Parts: sequence; C-alpha cells; structure tokens
Amino acid sequence: MQFDKEVLKYNEAGLIPAIVQDVHTKEVLMMAWMNQEAVEKTQASGETWFYSRSRQRMWKKGETSGHVQRVKGLYYDCDADTLLVLVEQVGGAACHEGYTSCFHNKINQDNTVIVEGEKKFDPAAVYGNT
Amino acid sequence: MQFDKEVLKYNEAGLIPAIVQDVHTKEVLMMAWMNQEAVEKTQASGETWFYSRSRQRMWKKGETSGHVQRVKGLYYDCDADTLLVLVEQVGGAACHEGYTSCFHNKINQDNTVIVEGEKKFDPAAVYGNT
Repeated sequence: MQFDKEVLKYNEAGLIPAIVQDVHTKEVLMMAWMNQEAVEKTQASGETWFYSRSRQRMWKKGETSGHVQRVKGLYYDCDADTLLVLVEQVGGAACHEGYTSCFHNKINQDNTVIVEGEKKFDPAAVYGNT
Repeated sequence: MQFDKEVLKYNEAGLIPAIVQDVHTKEVLMMAWMNQEAVEKTQASGETWFYSRSRQRMWKKGETSGHVQRVKGLYYDCDADTLLVLVEQVGGAACHEGYTSCFHNKINQDNTVIVEGEKKFDPAAVYGNT
C-alpha cells in the first residue's frame, strides 16, 4: 500500500508527537513534535527533524551538538496521531543534559525521584554556557 | 529527593502524553494522555489510567478487554512534559485492533506502508461488534 501523507492526523497547531527509540538498545530516547515539513525532511534526509513549539521554528536533532539521529524505521500508530521513529543515536546520548535518554527521572513507589543513567557528555562543553 | 507532583507540566488542556513501553521486550506499545487524576490513579493502583480526549472521560487500560497494564516503572523527561511508563502488558497486546503495539504501521523508504506484527486477538471477540 502506498503511504498517503494525508493519513497522519496533526493537532490543531499542525503538530504530531514523535517518540524516538534507539534501534539497538530499544531505549526510549526522547519525545518531540513534528509538523508536516519536519516529517517530510526526516523522510527525505534520513535524519530527524522536529518543530520547536517554544522557539517556533524547525530544528534538526544534533544541529548544535553533532548528535544526529539516523532513521532506521518510521511507524505511525492505529489512530495515525503519533509517530515512532527508530534511530541510531550518534554520540550515544539524546538528552541535551548529557544523558542517553531524556527519560532519566524515575518516580519510585515510595514517591522519591532518582536520576537513572550517567551523563555521557558535559552539556557546557557541547552547547557552550549559553 | 521527594517527588513533587507540581513539577509535571500539563498542557493547556491539563494533559500530559504518556508513552507506554513493555518492560520485558522494550517494545513501545502505545501513547495516550493522562491528566493529573490519571497520573495519581496510575501511581496508586499500579495499573495504567488515561484521559480520553474524544470521550472526555477517564479510562483504565483493559477496562473492557481485561488487558490491563501493570506498572513496573514511571519516568518523566528532562522537560517534565512527557511520561514514560514501563509495564507488563496482560494478554500480550496493547492495541485495540489486536496487535501487540499500536505502532504497527511501518512507512518504508520507498513510501509504501506495511503492517508489522500479527494480531494477538480478534477485536470483535474482545470488544464486541459495537
């Protein structure tokens, strides 16, 4: 079946959530938003592009850090309102704080929070002290 | 550190996206939305609760099918605006269409779409022909 790009359901702001998962470790790395242009640029380039709601512009993952994500699989769900992108994460870390995954804050059953995982890089060295 | 529930950032509709991942296979099963009450019920009950935007009500995963999700880990991301829930999926399938994962539609590089995975149950038998 041919992919019909009209099938994807964008929200009222023209955005669709995209979950990014490491194709090798299966770790969920991050979630960010794509508009239709970001979906198309991701498909065309083979690297992930997103739309920043706070900065109101397109951004390419790794544009500053060099930690791009090479797309190895692209899926949409049964409601066609969420994407799942399997990637090879260059540099081994997706989070701008230096962790492999953005989901490094664990809420325990006793209602304490711990940070899981180690920093793979120093954010100040990669992004500068801006 | 004690978990401060005020740290989670809900959107303008009072909702936060929750990615659900199988704790054993690491497969991403689904994404749905929680409001604060759903987060609290999920924590208190140890099974996933969500808020349906279309039905405008709380729902418990498995309330009809019996395919509940037993929570094994709860994480929030660096922006505190997305949750990741690790679960044991009772019945082996999360999707209401009978597939293990809701993300069973794969967009190939040649722009064709294929369905990956097999149906684990017959939706008509589980949910009725409504």
